[in-house]
Amino acid sequence: MNEPITPEDAQRSASVFEPLTRSLRELIDVTIRSQVNAADVRKARALIDEARELLGARLDSNPFGVRFTTDGQALPWGNVAIGMRNALAPPLHVRRDEEAGRATADLVLGAAYEGPPGQVHGGMCALILDHLLGATAHRRDEPAFTGTLTLRYVAPTPLGRLRAESWVEREDGGKTFAAGHLLDEKGRITVQAEGIFIRPKRPA
Amino acid sequence: MNEPITPEDAQRSASVFEPLTRSLRELIDVTIRSQVNAADVRKARALIDEARELLGARLDSNPFGVRFTTDGQALPWGNVAIGMRNALAPPLHVRRDEEAGRATADLVLGAAYEGPPGQVHGGMCALILDHLLGATAHRRDEPAFTGTLTLRYVAPTPLGRLRAESWVEREDGGKTFAAGHLLDEKGRITVQAEGIFIRPKRPA
Repeated sequence: MNEPITPEDAQRSASVFEPLTRSLRELIDVTIRSQVNAADVRKARALIDEARELLGARLDSNPFGVRFTTDGQALPWGNVAIGMRNALAPPLHVRRDEEAGRATADLVLGAAYEGPPGQVHGGMCALILDHLLGATAHRRDEPAFTGTLTLRYVAPTPLGRLRAESWVEREDGGKTFAAGHLLDEKGRITVQAEGIFIRPKRPA
Repeated sequence: MNEPITPEDAQRSASVFEPLTRSLRELIDVTIRSQVNAADVRKARALIDEARELLGARLDSNPFGVRFTTDGQALPWGNVAIGMRNALAPPLHVRRDEEAGRATADLVLGAAYEGPPGQVHGGMCALILDHLLGATAHRRDEPAFTGTLTLRYVAPTPLGRLRAESWVEREDGGKTFAAGHLLDEKGRITVQAEGIFIRPKRPA
């Protein structure tokens, strides 16, 4: 378990790691699309290894988990969907309206999220919708886990600008029945989802 | 549409890009777990930006798609699940037994695939199972698209060594009804999946 950190230290840490991770996302993209010669690829690799050495000089042996600030703010910085320090994450910026039980995220997915040529991988659509439907069930300090998730792919999802929307259908104790969809740039539904999300009972 | 490349050129390209992407996967991992000071993070970012400049000097404006060698081998190098040049991909190494209609993949997921602390993100499990179930439906030059996918999360999936297995339940024209599951290191099922995968009719 990690000690809570002050909001100021969290802010300071974010101010150096956020730009690092943003640069890394761009590097992932150009690694896929690059057409430079072998010598330049090898030079790039040497630079990457040098960066890895620098950052790896002092490592947490655990994955990031979810840390908290002393004022109770959650820092899910390693999360594969929303993590500020995780270059795999688009990252999703989830806007929640807890009163209305809704969540929304606008995102842009590039070459790194491809499945069929020019399209978002069906499994990536599933990841986004899983996270977004789950977000309607989250409560402060009470994460919700996916129980079941059903996806219906009604049209190809083109790479580019997308929106994901989710809402609560009904709740039953610690279970949230949520639904949602993914929309392409023109507002057409490409994938529909429904799922049951569970908040485990906490020890008394 | 890209021109087919010779198997020799594909081999040469793989021999420089595969080590590059492997180094990049390690860099993504240490970016999440690093505890070095701000000055070293900034130095690492400068190296990453330098690598990005080098690789970005000549870029394909399109995502990678699926390219083919002159002898018909598919190169899905940008794919988010299996792409050799995609650092987001674990990558999955899918072993297919086409006769038996089965597919299997062993994989190790580290800090970059985290959802709940210490566990694989539910959406990441969905991505892996979507790809693996879909693999049972693929035919040479006839990719299969996900129609529907249902996931049942029966236990947490710990980060670490995992196995995914899938099989064909039945086929009906261009539709493949597939099922599968994800197993943890001890062989316990953590997620069950079933789905319908569709091979579009080709123009005559």
